[in-house]
Amino acid sequence: MKKRKFTILGGDKRNVELARLLMEDSNEVQTFALNDTEYYLPKCKTLEEALDYGKIIVGPLPISRDGKTLNTPLFSESIELERILRGLTEKNIFIAGKIGSHFLENAKKKGIVLEDYFAREEMQIFNAIPTAEGAIQIAMEQMDITLHNSNAMILGYGRIGKALSKMLQGIGANVYVEARKYEDLAWIKNQGYFPIHLKELDFYINRMDVVFNTVPSMILDEKRLEKLNANCIIIDLASSPGGVDFEKAKELGIKAILASGLPGKVARVTAAAIIRDTIYHIIQEREEEKWD
Amino acid sequence: MKKRKFTILGGDKRNVELARLLMEDSNEVQTFALNDTEYYLPKCKTLEEALDYGKIIVGPLPISRDGKTLNTPLFSESIELERILRGLTEKNIFIAGKIGSHFLENAKKKGIVLEDYFAREEMQIFNAIPTAEGAIQIAMEQMDITLHNSNAMILGYGRIGKALSKMLQGIGANVYVEARKYEDLAWIKNQGYFPIHLKELDFYINRMDVVFNTVPSMILDEKRLEKLNANCIIIDLASSPGGVDFEKAKELGIKAILASGLPGKVARVTAAAIIRDTIYHIIQEREEEKWD
Amino acid sequence: MKKRKFTILGGDKRNVELARLLMEDSNEVQTFALNDTEYYLPKCKTLEEALDYGKIIVGPLPISRDGKTLNTPLFSESIELERILRGLTEKNIFIAGKIGSHFLENAKKKGIVLEDYFAREEMQIFNAIPTAEGAIQIAMEQMDITLHNSNAMILGYGRIGKALSKMLQGIGANVYVEARKYEDLAWIKNQGYFPIHLKELDFYINRMDVVFNTVPSMILDEKRLEKLNANCIIIDLASSPGGVDFEKAKELGIKAILASGLPGKVARVTAAAIIRDTIYHIIQEREEEKWD
Amino acid sequence: MKKRKFTILGGDKRNVELARLLMEDSNEVQTFALNDTEYYLPKCKTLEEALDYGKIIVGPLPISRDGKTLNTPLFSESIELERILRGLTEKNIFIAGKIGSHFLENAKKKGIVLEDYFAREEMQIFNAIPTAEGAIQIAMEQMDITLHNSNAMILGYGRIGKALSKMLQGIGANVYVEARKYEDLAWIKNQGYFPIHLKELDFYINRMDVVFNTVPSMILDEKRLEKLNANCIIIDLASSPGGVDFEKAKELGIKAILASGLPGKVARVTAAAIIRDTIYHIIQEREEEKWD
Repeated sequence: MKKRKFTILGGDKRNVELARLLMEDSNEVQTFALNDTEYYLPKCKTLEEALDYGKIIVGPLPISRDGKTLNTPLFSESIELERILRGLTEKNIFIAGKIGSHFLENAKKKGIVLEDYFAREEMQIFNAIPTAEGAIQIAMEQMDITLHNSNAMILGYGRIGKALSKMLQGIGANVYVEARKYEDLAWIKNQGYFPIHLKELDFYINRMDVVFNTVPSMILDEKRLEKLNANCIIIDLASSPGGVDFEKAKELGIKAILASGLPGKVARVTAAAIIRDTIYHIIQEREEEKWD
Repeated sequence: MKKRKFTILGGDKRNVELARLLMEDSNEVQTFALNDTEYYLPKCKTLEEALDYGKIIVGPLPISRDGKTLNTPLFSESIELERILRGLTEKNIFIAGKIGSHFLENAKKKGIVLEDYFAREEMQIFNAIPTAEGAIQIAMEQMDITLHNSNAMILGYGRIGKALSKMLQGIGANVYVEARKYEDLAWIKNQGYFPIHLKELDFYINRMDVVFNTVPSMILDEKRLEKLNANCIIIDLASSPGGVDFEKAKELGIKAILASGLPGKVARVTAAAIIRDTIYHIIQEREEEKWD
Repeated sequence: MKKRKFTILGGDKRNVELARLLMEDSNEVQTFALNDTEYYLPKCKTLEEALDYGKIIVGPLPISRDGKTLNTPLFSESIELERILRGLTEKNIFIAGKIGSHFLENAKKKGIVLEDYFAREEMQIFNAIPTAEGAIQIAMEQMDITLHNSNAMILGYGRIGKALSKMLQGIGANVYVEARKYEDLAWIKNQGYFPIHLKELDFYINRMDVVFNTVPSMILDEKRLEKLNANCIIIDLASSPGGVDFEKAKELGIKAILASGLPGKVARVTAAAIIRDTIYHIIQEREEEKWD
Repeated sequence: MKKRKFTILGGDKRNVELARLLMEDSNEVQTFALNDTEYYLPKCKTLEEALDYGKIIVGPLPISRDGKTLNTPLFSESIELERILRGLTEKNIFIAGKIGSHFLENAKKKGIVLEDYFAREEMQIFNAIPTAEGAIQIAMEQMDITLHNSNAMILGYGRIGKALSKMLQGIGANVYVEARKYEDLAWIKNQGYFPIHLKELDFYINRMDVVFNTVPSMILDEKRLEKLNANCIIIDLASSPGGVDFEKAKELGIKAILASGLPGKVARVTAAAIIRDTIYHIIQEREEEKWD
């Protein structure tokens, strides 16, 4: 791939690793609002210098926590998103994660090319891997038995369900996957797991040693929690508000863990590499459209 | 599941096995236009009696080969589709495979409930398994080396690609999967295969020992065939007209095999069981809609 | 299996779980010198009563830490091994782990039937599973990248090597296994891993992300540690003194972890179940020899 | 590896492929008594010239079918083994398969270095792979159902059992493995298959769809055959006389297939590559012993 000039703007340790990985690929990289203490990456002195430097400007994930200022946990000052917009031109391509609609529209009005990498399907698919490994790590830490030969159920067969089921099978668990659609159930059987239709869930759930939820709606409610055996561990991977009645679980003495944002937590460098690959795809596609 | 009355109408040995499997599940079954010599299944004397017997009437796959008469390879007389329509009432549900639009419309006009099981996604997904096994069987028969430790490429990552890649990996092949979309490529990597973007295909194809095509367009054209090593085997699983320039392959001395309709050929009973399960799903869904 | 009378004598939480598991199988169980606070297991008042109760007496693993007294971390008083010997008769079978030769001989002189479950091959094989899972858990906790798609090397292809390689492959790592004998290397290739002859180790080791050692001799010495890439994690699973120059590793800034006794630590209940199964095998074999 | 001079003497198509593979590795190769019609390999005119040419002389597998003359299916004349012995000197190393004790002793008397590659453990382990694939190919050809989701039992957990169980699991079969020793049963469970103790065999065998025998003693006798379901396929991979009562099976209408010598039949080139690798190992070991 052609070498390019990047500016990495704000963000947490993932952006530090991202900058390093981009440099390893022989790109030219400057950072701003990212005081790393590990690699002493090249830094611009001002935001303006930073925006002027890179053709491709990469912001944090999420771009902002308050909707107004850049997400800069490794920087002492606060940077208004508006200031960034003012510094960008039509020659830039601005890439960040979870870009709000307000920023998006303002950018478009100015003719700025921008893209949310977190919205891309392949990023979500890649992220399913560190999420699945993180879930397995938590399960191993919490369970008194091995995953090997345990009964493990996954609720939902989306991206995380697919990655997690294959790994659990690879470790030697008996893998049950719950889904609603016959199509998904067919895939579950096709890939060698036990398909459980939502209707059958109540019948099978009591024999599980661990349940991983990926469904973002209240699936493990009071009624189902009461059916679980006392040593069963629940790991909720669904995006907020999750699918577990945590209060009821606590009452019943069932260990239930809400696990979110696993990629950045359990595999920082992999998380950064996924962002890097997705950024490369974005650039490649734009170039094919003769953006360059 | 509730037991029911079925009439199996015409078809090949798959319908013989289907009738047997339905009986094993304690359903009441009669057949017509299906002279099996294996199980001596219960037979009706006339078409009218047959249509009168079952609430659920199951035809062949495909329902017809000429668009006018029922597909009855195991019966000496010919049965007009129109005659079947005349015998059906609103109380029946008629199920068959690859039902033409003409028959479909005529049935609808008469208020007859009918469904094409072959059009259902879960049937296609289930069929990917015997298709993948059939492809592996052919590869084993044709290759001078083991699949284990061989370089095997799959073109396309649809239903067959997904089933086949997992099995080949399970046998110990080095599995390369070609796709176009970054999303598919992400899945390919996620599941542990080597992702090959269509653009990179020319670079990798020469080191393959076997190539399975599932893409229904001319992907293995003259240019690519010339790149293949002389002992490489091609197995084309794409629906007609396939994706291989067979004439050119022959000219180059490359063994290329067009393999279609594998489920019925390599695993007759599994093929029938897939039809049975799909029929059950159809019935179940209709009952949920209070069809019963 | 026939139900029996067991006395569980001393030991840690594994013996608590063992007692519970034996009771779940409808055996009659009493404990002594094992003050559990979880299940309130039935307890004998005196050692003599305890030895009198069970036909099968199960001690701890290891039986003793000082060679003289029973290993009783959950009991406040100390129990001389000699006192146990005095209480046993020819009708008992005494089973414990890592029984010293002194105790063994004394018991034999008295005609007492005793067996060391830890010395049995199947126990060691079963223990390889929680050991492998524990190693994977540690790797996941320590690494900044996912195991999936990482380069993982296992030194040695014994019991732990075999269990660990399969699991790592199942998670999606690129698995390299080092061995010395052509026979082992043939198996490694046969099972789908990259075989690395000890002679080739120096050539491959620099590209690894994690190295698991199972060889109980100094294999990761200064010379090899210097070849490792800086982010590589070492997990030493070999029995003491292990196979890693830990001081040198520290000097080089390489994270090296000595992990021993994993089964009891990471999967207490599985560890107890393995002891239970091994005890059942011992009893079964003795009965076949008409011991009963 | 150092390049060398080889003479390939007699044998079938495997030796043709072996000669070709040795040449691909840049060795100098001449053949004798091996009239291939595929590659037109370099040929010596006389046996004497052939024996004089190569430092390493490679014979066929088996070396002889009658104990007196060389096994030369691709040559019209017959060559006495004695004549070969006369032509060899202490400078040669003679390698062949299944060398009889008579020839072996005569060679030793003359001080000739010779080795039987078929007797080496790693060759047997490597051969387990094409044997397992061949067995799977036969099962696929014979069964009316897919291996995926079928119940497959392997009798014995030796080399073939280990290779075959992993592949069958990889295809998605439910894999049951019978063994006698607790140690083997522990491994079977460890690797994720259902362990079946010989004593439990009668209880489980009736639910199998295919049984692969690797035990060279009458394990599938009349009593067990009667328990099998009628559609179950038996594939006997044990060395002669095998472990199946074939007459009784025929009587019961059960399909039982004796499959021997699979590597050469189903994967000629892989079989030759295995011989090549084993020959390289032999040479390497001898060189380490300063034979050179």
